[in-house]
Amino acid sequence: MEHEVLAKLRSAMKEAGCDALVAFSQDNVTYTAGFLVPSQASNRFRRTITILAGDSYAAQIVVNVEENLARQRSRFSDIRSYNQFTQDPADLLADALEEAGVAAGRIAIELDYMPAQDYIRLKERLPQAAFVPCKDLYFTARMIKTNEEVAILRKVGELTDRVAGEVLAEIVPGMTEKAVGQIISNKMMDGGCDGLKYKVGSGIRSGITNCTPTDKKIEKGDVIRIEILGDMQQYRSNVTRTAVVGEPTDEQKKIWEVMIGSREACKALLKPGLPVPDLYRTYVKYLQDRGIEPTLKFLGHGIGQTIHEEPYITDTRTIVMEPNITFTMEPLYMMPGRMGFHVEDMYLITPTGYDRITGTISPNDELIRVG
Amino acid sequence: MEHEVLAKLRSAMKEAGCDALVAFSQDNVTYTAGFLVPSQASNRFRRTITILAGDSYAAQIVVNVEENLARQRSRFSDIRSYNQFTQDPADLLADALEEAGVAAGRIAIELDYMPAQDYIRLKERLPQAAFVPCKDLYFTARMIKTNEEVAILRKVGELTDRVAGEVLAEIVPGMTEKAVGQIISNKMMDGGCDGLKYKVGSGIRSGITNCTPTDKKIEKGDVIRIEILGDMQQYRSNVTRTAVVGEPTDEQKKIWEVMIGSREACKALLKPGLPVPDLYRTYVKYLQDRGIEPTLKFLGHGIGQTIHEEPYITDTRTIVMEPNITFTMEPLYMMPGRMGFHVEDMYLITPTGYDRITGTISPNDELIRVG
Repeated sequence: MEHEVLAKLRSAMKEAGCDALVAFSQDNVTYTAGFLVPSQASNRFRRTITILAGDSYAAQIVVNVEENLARQRSRFSDIRSYNQFTQDPADLLADALEEAGVAAGRIAIELDYMPAQDYIRLKERLPQAAFVPCKDLYFTARMIKTNEEVAILRKVGELTDRVAGEVLAEIVPGMTEKAVGQIISNKMMDGGCDGLKYKVGSGIRSGITNCTPTDKKIEKGDVIRIEILGDMQQYRSNVTRTAVVGEPTDEQKKIWEVMIGSREACKALLKPGLPVPDLYRTYVKYLQDRGIEPTLKFLGHGIGQTIHEEPYITDTRTIVMEPNITFTMEPLYMMPGRMGFHVEDMYLITPTGYDRITGTISPNDELIRVG
Repeated sequence: MEHEVLAKLRSAMKEAGCDALVAFSQDNVTYTAGFLVPSQASNRFRRTITILAGDSYAAQIVVNVEENLARQRSRFSDIRSYNQFTQDPADLLADALEEAGVAAGRIAIELDYMPAQDYIRLKERLPQAAFVPCKDLYFTARMIKTNEEVAILRKVGELTDRVAGEVLAEIVPGMTEKAVGQIISNKMMDGGCDGLKYKVGSGIRSGITNCTPTDKKIEKGDVIRIEILGDMQQYRSNVTRTAVVGEPTDEQKKIWEVMIGSREACKALLKPGLPVPDLYRTYVKYLQDRGIEPTLKFLGHGIGQTIHEEPYITDTRTIVMEPNITFTMEPLYMMPGRMGFHVEDMYLITPTGYDRITGTISPNDELIRVG
């Protein structure tokens, strides 16, 4: 039996009227093969390619130094390798497509990612083939998670939710933003992450959307915003919390009530069948009715092997929610030069409604008080 | 006056008989523009492109959300931006090349990186142009550092050298490899790094070339190998140290003498005019004369905006050393299932010889004793 991810992709390929499906990018190759070829991330000269064709053809092309690892860990049993300095991976790809009997077929391939040089070589080798983009095919397939994917997202989400709460509890005035970042990093790595990113902004720096931590010390009265982006077994988490050192002001409390109110109004809609733009419009209307203009043009984003994937929660999408879609909602309001407010959690659409992947261990329904 | 990096690239472009030079990849764009467009690293749909043409044309294309930052930080004063969802960056590139008067010219462009889709569009828009690869042109230009680049490499190198020594001094038996990694991470970030990677291997795990730290505890008698790869203002450091918990055995001491001896034999050759393959052959011969077969087929690598760049210190290169080439030398000997030995430092070729960028603060001329 073919792995369900491969079966799903193969079926999407056929529905799109294609004879083959070829991935080159790190996220699509990792999704297809079920593991990350380590040097693909760091060395752009080491192409890694997956190929599905017809009813059963499946092969993966890797650089020779990664061949043994691929044989141990890939979903593909047919692994072909090339020498980076003497062979052209595009030739191995052309060979594979010929072998699969689709040399004159319609090939869905990552035109938006594969290097021009490989495309030029492939056209020379397979002049009868038609090459068409596969960006949307992959995005759509990846949007609906398998149960195995949901399980990993829950695991990394739970850790991130817990760490967010623990870190805020450890903040005291005088600590630098960078020191807060290091606590986040240590706790996430201790908890089993393979990597992470984080943002920490305090005082007026909380009003910068993507706030890289600095040596600024946290002071009484500061709004503090921490965002954690975890990475575990190639799946990501994304959780954001806002806190205040000491007592929040009335203005801060009022803004926060609107943030949380908008989120609750959106949560109430979550179930299969919900059009994504409805969710975004509900959010915007809730804020605008209360005199707040949303800072960003989206409410959240799908999450899986990449931090940002479909469904983007905006009114430009036509996607309708289905079970096993995972995504974040992140009401956000930046007041540049003053302060910023932001709460972000991960959600899963279930057959009857939704589950919170995060937000139960370290809820942020009120502004968290620290220090 | 044009920035010396732009002047150097423009002159290399002309020498190669080209009318324009176009970069797409993160490393070449960052090198050219002098700053990293933040989302280029994380979002492959946000193309960033630099263009040099003729005697004076210079422009950079960025996604609209990065436009303000690019205007503040790029070396290019002509910044053009596109909307990721409604415009094709390849069209902006075609417009720029037309404007520069090279629509029918010879365009050196990153065929090994630019997406096929952009190439297809560019061919449609500029049917008279000839597109040729620029991989070697960029590699060669980047190999010889400017004094500004050398200064940053010295800064990140010095920090890494110091941290390597401090971390080893803090190791005690019972500590896990991961805990050692966290000490490295905290010290490097405290010291002003923007990011880093590291490897930690102890006991038989020191014999794994790329040893990701695990929960394994460090024990008496273990060989410990730590490798630190720093990242500061887009420049990298790479330092590796080998230590023993307690007293080294005679076998360990003997192997280490050969490692250091090979390095000293190579250091004695370093000066402008030295052919890179001579360096590699000296290393291999030194080891083989003493009964040790080198584990890897290279002695080191250029270092700058990427960890691995030209000159790779192997016998497949024809490069001759010149002032302001920066590189590492890393004698390495892995005994799988037993232990591993590895010392790596950064060097700079000067007009009369060489400078050690690292290796003066935490020398590893003898096996370091820890615990």
